[in-house]
Parts: sequence; structure tokens; C-alpha cells
Amino acid sequence: MLVVMERNATQGQIDAVIEAVQALGLTPQPIPGGSRVAIGVLGNQGYVDEEPFRDLPGIQEIIHVTKPYKLVSRDFHPDDTVVSVGGVRVGWNQEPVVIAGPCAVESLDQVLAAARAVKAAGARILRGGAFKPRTGPHAFQGLGYQGLEYLAEAGRTVGLPVVTEVMRIDQLEPVAALADCLQIGARNMQNFDLLKEVGRPGKPVLLKRGMSATLEEFLAAAEYILLEGNDQVILCERGIRTFERALRNTLDLGVVPFLRQVTHLPLIVDPSHALGRRDLVGPMAKAALVVGAAGIMVEVHPDPLHALCDGPQSLDPGGFDSLMRELRAILPAISPVGSIQERHQVGS
Amino acid sequence: MLVVMERNATQGQIDAVIEAVQALGLTPQPIPGGSRVAIGVLGNQGYVDEEPFRDLPGIQEIIHVTKPYKLVSRDFHPDDTVVSVGGVRVGWNQEPVVIAGPCAVESLDQVLAAARAVKAAGARILRGGAFKPRTGPHAFQGLGYQGLEYLAEAGRTVGLPVVTEVMRIDQLEPVAALADCLQIGARNMQNFDLLKEVGRPGKPVLLKRGMSATLEEFLAAAEYILLEGNDQVILCERGIRTFERALRNTLDLGVVPFLRQVTHLPLIVDPSHALGRRDLVGPMAKAALVVGAAGIMVEVHPDPLHALCDGPQSLDPGGFDSLMRELRAILPAISPVGSIQERHQVGS
Amino acid sequence: MLVVMERNATQGQIDAVIEAVQALGLTPQPIPGGSRVAIGVLGNQGYVDEEPFRDLPGIQEIIHVTKPYKLVSRDFHPDDTVVSVGGVRVGWNQEPVVIAGPCAVESLDQVLAAARAVKAAGARILRGGAFKPRTGPHAFQGLGYQGLEYLAEAGRTVGLPVVTEVMRIDQLEPVAALADCLQIGARNMQNFDLLKEVGRPGKPVLLKRGMSATLEEFLAAAEYILLEGNDQVILCERGIRTFERALRNTLDLGVVPFLRQVTHLPLIVDPSHALGRRDLVGPMAKAALVVGAAGIMVEVHPDPLHALCDGPQSLDPGGFDSLMRELRAILPAISPVGSIQERHQVGS
Amino acid sequence: MLVVMERNATQGQIDAVIEAVQALGLTPQPIPGGSRVAIGVLGNQGYVDEEPFRDLPGIQEIIHVTKPYKLVSRDFHPDDTVVSVGGVRVGWNQEPVVIAGPCAVESLDQVLAAARAVKAAGARILRGGAFKPRTGPHAFQGLGYQGLEYLAEAGRTVGLPVVTEVMRIDQLEPVAALADCLQIGARNMQNFDLLKEVGRPGKPVLLKRGMSATLEEFLAAAEYILLEGNDQVILCERGIRTFERALRNTLDLGVVPFLRQVTHLPLIVDPSHALGRRDLVGPMAKAALVVGAAGIMVEVHPDPLHALCDGPQSLDPGGFDSLMRELRAILPAISPVGSIQERHQVGS
Repeated sequence: MLVVMERNATQGQIDAVIEAVQALGLTPQPIPGGSRVAIGVLGNQGYVDEEPFRDLPGIQEIIHVTKPYKLVSRDFHPDDTVVSVGGVRVGWNQEPVVIAGPCAVESLDQVLAAARAVKAAGARILRGGAFKPRTGPHAFQGLGYQGLEYLAEAGRTVGLPVVTEVMRIDQLEPVAALADCLQIGARNMQNFDLLKEVGRPGKPVLLKRGMSATLEEFLAAAEYILLEGNDQVILCERGIRTFERALRNTLDLGVVPFLRQVTHLPLIVDPSHALGRRDLVGPMAKAALVVGAAGIMVEVHPDPLHALCDGPQSLDPGGFDSLMRELRAILPAISPVGSIQERHQVGS
Repeated sequence: MLVVMERNATQGQIDAVIEAVQALGLTPQPIPGGSRVAIGVLGNQGYVDEEPFRDLPGIQEIIHVTKPYKLVSRDFHPDDTVVSVGGVRVGWNQEPVVIAGPCAVESLDQVLAAARAVKAAGARILRGGAFKPRTGPHAFQGLGYQGLEYLAEAGRTVGLPVVTEVMRIDQLEPVAALADCLQIGARNMQNFDLLKEVGRPGKPVLLKRGMSATLEEFLAAAEYILLEGNDQVILCERGIRTFERALRNTLDLGVVPFLRQVTHLPLIVDPSHALGRRDLVGPMAKAALVVGAAGIMVEVHPDPLHALCDGPQSLDPGGFDSLMRELRAILPAISPVGSIQERHQVGS
Repeated sequence: MLVVMERNATQGQIDAVIEAVQALGLTPQPIPGGSRVAIGVLGNQGYVDEEPFRDLPGIQEIIHVTKPYKLVSRDFHPDDTVVSVGGVRVGWNQEPVVIAGPCAVESLDQVLAAARAVKAAGARILRGGAFKPRTGPHAFQGLGYQGLEYLAEAGRTVGLPVVTEVMRIDQLEPVAALADCLQIGARNMQNFDLLKEVGRPGKPVLLKRGMSATLEEFLAAAEYILLEGNDQVILCERGIRTFERALRNTLDLGVVPFLRQVTHLPLIVDPSHALGRRDLVGPMAKAALVVGAAGIMVEVHPDPLHALCDGPQSLDPGGFDSLMRELRAILPAISPVGSIQERHQVGS
Repeated sequence: MLVVMERNATQGQIDAVIEAVQALGLTPQPIPGGSRVAIGVLGNQGYVDEEPFRDLPGIQEIIHVTKPYKLVSRDFHPDDTVVSVGGVRVGWNQEPVVIAGPCAVESLDQVLAAARAVKAAGARILRGGAFKPRTGPHAFQGLGYQGLEYLAEAGRTVGLPVVTEVMRIDQLEPVAALADCLQIGARNMQNFDLLKEVGRPGKPVLLKRGMSATLEEFLAAAEYILLEGNDQVILCERGIRTFERALRNTLDLGVVPFLRQVTHLPLIVDPSHALGRRDLVGPMAKAALVVGAAGIMVEVHPDPLHALCDGPQSLDPGGFDSLMRELRAILPAISPVGSIQERHQVGS
């Protein structure tokens, strides 16, 4: 941490900062500048809370050098974490995984039809919502536990592990009994109580980025889960909220190669929710793999025209099969991922 | 709802939309235009779900005329709702209420000192956090139920009703037993399960706007609570996330006179969290009352320099007392609120 | 246009709107609804200005069905426009074009070295800045007309057409005398006087999207140029400003397949300015082509470590050559672009 | 400037940074930390360009301590600058000034009527647009020089100085011959060529904040003008673009007390453009003065229903007169501005 003093800070104010640093058992390092003094804070093992400093008089700015997360960082864990979802491996340098299925489970027949279609086309994990967060209270809210049982049965029948969203703490145990991976939705990314408990049943967690979450907040949310002893966390970029409203969200693909440098946790991309339109899912799914994502999550419905939720962004079985063929065609042409991580290749 | 067809939509595509409208028991009204056809949807009692339409071929755009909320709207409830928090009345045309107290309850002594100070200066509701949502898991997370008891005791001692945040469903009953008003924080504004249950204990609810929530989403979140039968909801603007990061958030005061036209639920303003700096709290608190807010919520700590949470944005007792004097000086000069609601005064 | 009346609008207010529509020579079409009336406006040839309506009493909302642009739209010009830059064809269904060169022209040697390198690696247009817009007045502002001459000489020497930014109207003629394409930078996207005149010298125009420009504003800016009789316009997505500041901008790749449906003007992508970091340029450049962009623009400097401008986002010749090899490997695997335009393929 | 090295940076990489600092004639100050090294850069007189550093291997982050502006900062010029617009003084601690008039000059009669009305109600500067920037090319673009002459005549007739927008360099001299203050619109805030020349005619400049300009960019734009020797610059907050689109822009009033600490240049507020609705102008105008703005700019039209531009946000003469009465009522209750500048009043 660096404490930058105001231009006209008094020696007494500088001394007060130095003492506050020492009071925390840390080492102050004054750095005299041309027009102002800054005080470096040394000796910390992790993020230094700025509360005891920020309020002292004469301080212009406090600059954090250490990030508010540690366990999720490559600094502390350089090797990729490979998450196993019912035996399917998800990681930065693994074969990209495709997760597919309906937005919401509507009936056993519907989810079975979707499961068969996505399995046949090559998906490796089945998704489906039993508990649905909806902006307005008047919209379809999901089948609940009944839906969960349908999803699990469909997964067993076709031989795919399943992932589904949990929305409250008392759902964790029953959902974990039937699902292979627990999803935290974008709206719950900073539901810290849920984060603290979601890792406890010992299942992997799929954590979606909040609609307006910075990358720092996204990683700090994952840190909550790792701190409880579960490192089986998959991150998911699903579009952010910006001034542009022509499309539902702005899919932020630049974070894929960036987070690959920063964290060992794998990141997948959900183009269906980001764009909200079926016709844009294919191009963005391909782009996600090209920039190095560890996988994609795509909505597939046996009959999108009559879907109860997010039909317009769902592919039908034929559309999904075509997409999978295109993805397979493009994969061999993607350059070895190692090359992406080389940052300072200039002149080499 | 208005379904706008593409310029080159076929008659068959137009007919399919007309049939889909009829299938819902609604009345289609084709509107032939110069270059395209649009189909009005009539006969709906509320918001029409666009799922059955959006995916039909030949549609360019679907435009909602009805909003995704109803109970919170002045259209359906023209008169102000006045919320009673332990006897203190909060409403658009009531005397503005000041809620004050520490960000987090740290000890009985601390919250008692704060309570005495804010009561003496004229605050009418005491705030204090027992359960604290924190971006990073390494920060102070609150005293929990112990903090809640301290808060309640402080409120009883000085004679102020208390408001505190709830973060999970299993906290609702025990918190409602001690607090006069339950707060839903910005990060939980779309925690729909919590919304559905927070109104059940029969206490008023203080609902904070999410960091990137549109006004439509904000009102739809409140609708969740009203739908469960509790209309005692206070809305709270607390700053939104924008590209500008020089200050913590961007306090969006324009929503105050705008929401006053749209909803009967009162709206208060929290300048402390929005700005994150003590020196900006005063001016923005005054501005909030000037634009017609039903109240403000301000953080006050007996010793901000040693606060465990948000010290830099907390006023000390002397600062709060000065602010209250300034607020009292400004109130008589605020024009009668009725004038704010007159929209089309031109030429009158 | 649709004029939605308030729930309690009087018949007199409705009649006033109807008369205002008729006064413009247009046809009003009242649409009675369950709780309110709306009035469709028919007979317009293009965008209807809402000024004469918006202010009448009793109106809740005015909804535009027609967009504020016409010439740039596929509705009015279904076939792709192919722009010719010194003989190089740029269009949605053409071979993707790579534009490369230094951010700023620093010397004849520098731009010649860059030109030779990008030509050898397969770029087809040379870029280089002579006039540089810089956020702060203390930064290097470009060589001006001297730089322009160096750029033109480098282009002639290696046999590549050149594109360079113009910043003021009095630069148009002299720059057009030497350059094959005139670039309008993001900061000038709504410099309407420049837009009106930039097309007059008869050279193609490369128009960058403004940092916070909606797609509607972006297309309306292009409309300014087409209205003056020049349809040789290339659009360029270069990242937008969002709350996320970990990277310089958020590259909005979802607009590529979306704008392909909306406009006949080609869109290219500039990953260098969007991300601001060399190591992210390659992945995003590949992704841009995968989503169907008509081309990319990439910064290449013979010696990025000593560049006067944007060195950290510039590739060196070796890095650019590697990128071009990767792009060539990926191109054959990109699915035929026609398939992207099919929106309603469900069930087909 | 602080150069933070990566955790695993080599000694060679650290030495390279140290040499690069020395090569600029500055002094490197290594700061060894627990897990990484940082290198302070000392001896600089102003902002240090990061180009020569940012690209060296082993660097994690570069942190600027000095801002990219100097002349506009209170650090270098502690006393308020008071700008004189035809004798009217505009400054942080001056009586707040009200600028009013029509969005666009439409005729001599119209602007004369507006001028008489705003003068009678107490405005001290007359505004009116002769050259109008419009998003779409099909909208009314202003009367041009004819409009300028009407505006000047109206100002002379009623005895008010006038301000009007300039959009291109060749307008500067003729506009400066007739106007008392030259306005740079939000869309031109980073039209750097215009900024460099706008101060040359020696008239004060009213600089509007760009729609998505950070405060740092806003101040850097003003720095361009001061660098050319003209310090008579008035800043103007007019709303920023955010995800919220229910209102036209988000008026960012928190910047008023913040910029008061940072810069000696006065800041005024334009609520008309920010909100886009007449009924919200009054409350926000009052709030602007309450938070300490040096003035406001309000659109007034003698007949808003028939205005050619921005009628719905314009007050009519009666509405403006009422607003002025409310402002006069509120001014005495605004606390002495000095108190706003006290940042660290805790415990005092």
C-alpha cells in the first residue's frame, strides 16, 4: 500500500501516518518526492485494510498495490486448477467443455429431449434451471425441486453430469444431493452468505460474474468460496451492463485472455444470456473459444418457440448441432494456448 | 404491447402474430404503416410476457407500453403510501426523516454513544449494521446477533426505532423480533427469494437500489415485496456504478423527482455510501431534501478515526449536529412539494 | 411513431395529439387499450421528429418505430456496400482486410520499416497517425504534415494504400491529396461539422465509434457522411467505456454480427486501442474475424519499446508476422458468412 | 509515479527500470516489499509519461501519483479564478450566476422575447445556440451567423452579455466578435484542435463535460485552454451517460463539491440538458446551488410548445420566473461555502 500525502501536508501529519503503520506491525517507508511525500507500507502478507489510514488528515490518496484476493491469484497458485464436474475436466489448458441445455426445466419430456440432443451433438455437461431468478414477480419462476429431479433423471439417462443454479442456503444440501455442480447466478455474485456456504457440500461451483462487477470484485467473490476450503470453482463471463442497450448485455471477451494471466481458476463464457438473441450465440461462442475460454455454456431447447423462459436466445437441436460442427472445425486452428500467455514477446 | 414487423414481413408472418395474440385471449390490432406493419396488443390487464411473440419470424422489435410492475405504480395507487417505522411516518409529503447511526455495530458502548448523539441532534430513526456484506472476505463482517441486541438496546435506551440489514432468509424472524425495519442491501436487490420473504414478518422494509439497477428493475424488486401483501416499503437511492471512479459511486439525484411521479412508495437518499467521503455527505444530504426526498440516511460514528467499517464516510457527533442545523435552516425555503409534481405547467 | 397517452388523459388531450399529427400531413391512428390510449403516426417517409408532440399534455411516452437513419440501413439498401481503399476492397462478404502500421509516424525510417514489415506479413493497407489526439496537452502530438508526407512515401515505396486521421476541416484537402482513406477518430464521431465535410474530397472514410456512442448514434454519424453523397464509409469498433477499468476499454464484439444485419456498410475492429495491451491484441483480432468483421486494424511498430505513442499495445514485426500466420490458419475454418445472417432458423 | 514489479521479476528487470528512470533525468527509489519490489520515480516537475516504462518486462502495474494536469489544479493555483463574462463575475465564492435563454435562436423576435423574460426574472447572462450539434442530420441545425447576430442584438437590447457555442475553428473569430463567452459543447470536449484555439480570441470559455468524460479528462481538456494562456474558463457539468436511460443523462452533482477542492476554475451546472424534462429542471437547479455550484444554465423559450429544439426541457417565462423566486428563497439558507471545503473536520 502506498499512502500519498497532500502537497502541503505537515510533518505532524506525516508522522501520524508512520505511527499508524507501525501500530499494525508493518513497516513504513517514506518516499520524499518533488512536490509531496508518499509513504510505502511494507511487511504485509496480504491486502492491507485502508480503514485505519484513509481518515488521517493530510492524505491525498491511498493506492493499493496488493489486490483484495490471494487464493484465486496465480501469484500464489501458479498452476491451473482443473475442476472436475462429474468426471469432466474444466481448466485453462484442457479441451474446451461445452455445457448445454434449457434455460428452465419445464417437464421431464422437455429436459430429456434437450439432454438427448445436446449429448448427441457433443456437449459434456447438461444445464437446466429449476429455480429461476426473474426480474419481475409475474414471470415463470421455475418448477423448483420437481424440476431438479427431472434434470437429474435426464442427466442419468443420457450420461451427462448436471449443473443447476442455487438461490438460497437451504437449497444447498438438497441440490447438491442431485446435481454435480452448483451455479451461483449473476444477481447473487455478492450474496456473501451464499458464497460462504455454497462450497461446503463439496461440489464444484460455477460462479457467474455480476452484471456490474469489476474483475477485482469477481475474483474477490471467488475468494470467499476458496477461503472455505473448496477450490473447485469455475468462473463464468455472461455479459456486463453498459450504456449500450441495443443488445441485452455487452459480452466482455477481453477478460478471457486477461483473467488467464491473473487466475488459475478456469473461465467459461455464456453467450446466450449475454446477447439474448439466438442468431448471435453462434458467432460469440466461437469467439469465446478462439480467445481461449475453458468452455462455453449455451441454451438449447427442443422447441424454443414455446419455451417458458428465454426462448429467443435458445438454439434448437438442429441449430446446436450445427454450432458444434463449426466449433469442432475451428478448434484445430486455434493456436496453442501457451502462446497467449506470453506477455513480453517484443523483440524475442 | 406493440409488435413491429420487419419491412419485408410476409402476410403469413403477420397472421402468425395475430393468432399468437388471440391464443392468449387478447385482441390484436394491426396498424398498417408506410413501410411496415405493427400489431397492437389490447385487452391485457397488466404486463404482457413477450416470450410467446418474440421468437416468431418477421418481427423486428417488441415494444412494451405497460411496465413490469403494477402495485408500486401511481397508476394503480395514486395516493402516497406512508410507511410507519416504529411510529415515525415516512412518505413523499411528510416531514423528511433523518436516519442516522454507525455503519456497523462494534460494541454496546459505541452504538449507545452514536444513538445518544443522533437522537440529540434530531435524527428520528437509528441505523446500525449487525451483518455486514463486504466485497472481500478478509474484512470485518459485523458482530451478528450480538450486534443486533446492542442496536436494539441502544434504540430502546434513547427512544428511537431501529433499522438494520438482513442478508439471509433465516435471519428474518430473529431480526424482526428486535428491529423496527428490515433493510435489503444494494447487493441483494435482486435476491428474489429474500424479497419474497422479507415482507412476511410484517415489518416495514427499506429496499436499496442495486448498484446497476435500472429504475424499472428497482420498482420491479419492490413489486416482489408488495405482491406478498406488505406495502410498507421505503426505497433508497444510494449511488450507481458508472465509468466515473473518482468518487465511490454516482449519486443519482434526478431519480428523486422522477420517482415521485411514478410511485407512491417513499424514496430516501443515502449520501454516505454513494460518495464514500465525509466531506461530500453534507452538501449531498441537503441536495437530497431540496429535490424532494422523503428522507436521508447518514452514517454517524462516535469516533470515525477508529471505526471498523466506512470510517472515512462517517460524520462524528459534532459534524452530524452541524449538518442537522443546516438541514433545518434549509427546509422552510424548500418550495411546497406539490409544485414539483406539476409536469405540464407550460403556459399556465 | 407511437404516442402513448397517460392513463388519465382527457379526450381533449387525445384530440390535441391527433391534430398535431394531422398538422404535419401525417395520419393519426388511435389505438384504444384497456387502461390507456395510444396514437399511431402513419404516412411518414422517415424518422418523425418528436418535438411537436413530446410537449403536449397527457402524453406518457413517445416510442420511435423508425430509426434516426435511413441511408445506412439495410432496409433501404439491402446489398453490401464494398468500399475501395486504393483498390483494396472492404466489405462484409469480402476477404477480411488487415490494416496495420504505427500509432504515430515518428520518422521516415520508422514508418518505412513498419510499412515493409506489415506488407511482408500480408497487411493490405498501411495506417499511421500524423495528427494525434491526446488526452493531455503535454503528450506527443504527432509530426503533422511532415508525418503525412512520410506516411505517403512509405505507402508508395511498399505499394500499400494509406489511411490516416483528420482532426479539422482545413486538413481535409491536403490530407486527401496524399492519403487513400480519411479516418475520423472516436473523439470526433459527433463532430458534426467535420462529418459533413469529410466525405467531400471523394476519398473513403474510416469512422470510429465514439467511446460512449450507442449503435444508433454511430449509424446516425455515418448517415451524416452518406447524406453528403459519399457512401464509401468503413465503420470501426474500437472499444467502449464501461465501469470496468482493468483494461483500457471494453471491446464490444457482439456488435459485429448485429450490425451486419442492420447496415450495408462494412465494420472493422481495432483491438489495439480497445485493450491497450499487446498480449491481448492477438486473441481479440482472431475473435473479430471469427464473428465476421470485415477486417481488423492493428498497431505495429518496428521498435515498440521506444515508441512515442501507444508502444505497449503495438506488436513488433515478429509478433505481427505470427499473428498473420494464426489468422490465415483460422480463416478457412470460419463458417460461410451467409449463415450468420439467418436469424429465424429455428425448426428449419 | 510508482512502478510495481511482478512478484517474480528478476534483478535484471528491476535494473532495467531503474536505468530507464535515470535516462529521463529522474531519480529511481526502489522500495522492497514482502512479495515484490516497487520503484518510486522522484524528481519530476509534472506528470511523467509512462510510455518509456510501461513496456519493460517484469512490470505488473504503473501507478500515477501526479495527475495529467497542472495549471487547472488548486495545488498550483490555490485561489479561486474568477471569470468575467462581460462584467459578470463567475467564481466558486461569488454570488451564483444564472445563465438562461433558448436552446436555439429561431428568430429575432423569439430571442428578444426570451432575453426580456430572463432579464426580468434575474438572469445575468443570455444563452442561445446559433450552430447546433444534432445527433441526426435530419434535425434543425440552427440559423448560423444570422442567429448569432440576433442573439447579440437581443443581448445588447436588454443589457445582458451572451454565450453561444462554437463548433469549428473558423467560427472562433467571427463569433468572438459578437459574443462575450464561447461555449465548447460536450461532444467537442476532446476536440483538441478546437481547445487549443478557442482561448486565442481572448474571450472566456464555457467548457462542457463530455458525456463519458472522467473528471481527470475534463480537467485535462481545460488544461489545453489554460496552456495557451487563457485562464478564463468556466466548467459545466451537464449529465453523464450511464446504464440508466429512463432520463436522458445522469446529472452528477457529487462532482460539484469534489471539483471545488480540486480546481480553482468555477463549475456551473446545466440541469436542462442533463434531465431533458422541464419538470425536473427546477428541483435539480436548486440542488446544484445547494451543493455549491458557481451557477446554473437553464433553457428558457417564450413558447416551448413550438420550439424547434429541446422544447420539452425548456421553461416558459412564467416557469423561469417561479424558479428564480425559489432560488432566491433558498440562497440565504445555504451554509457559508467555506464550510464545504473543510475535509478533515472530525473531532474538531
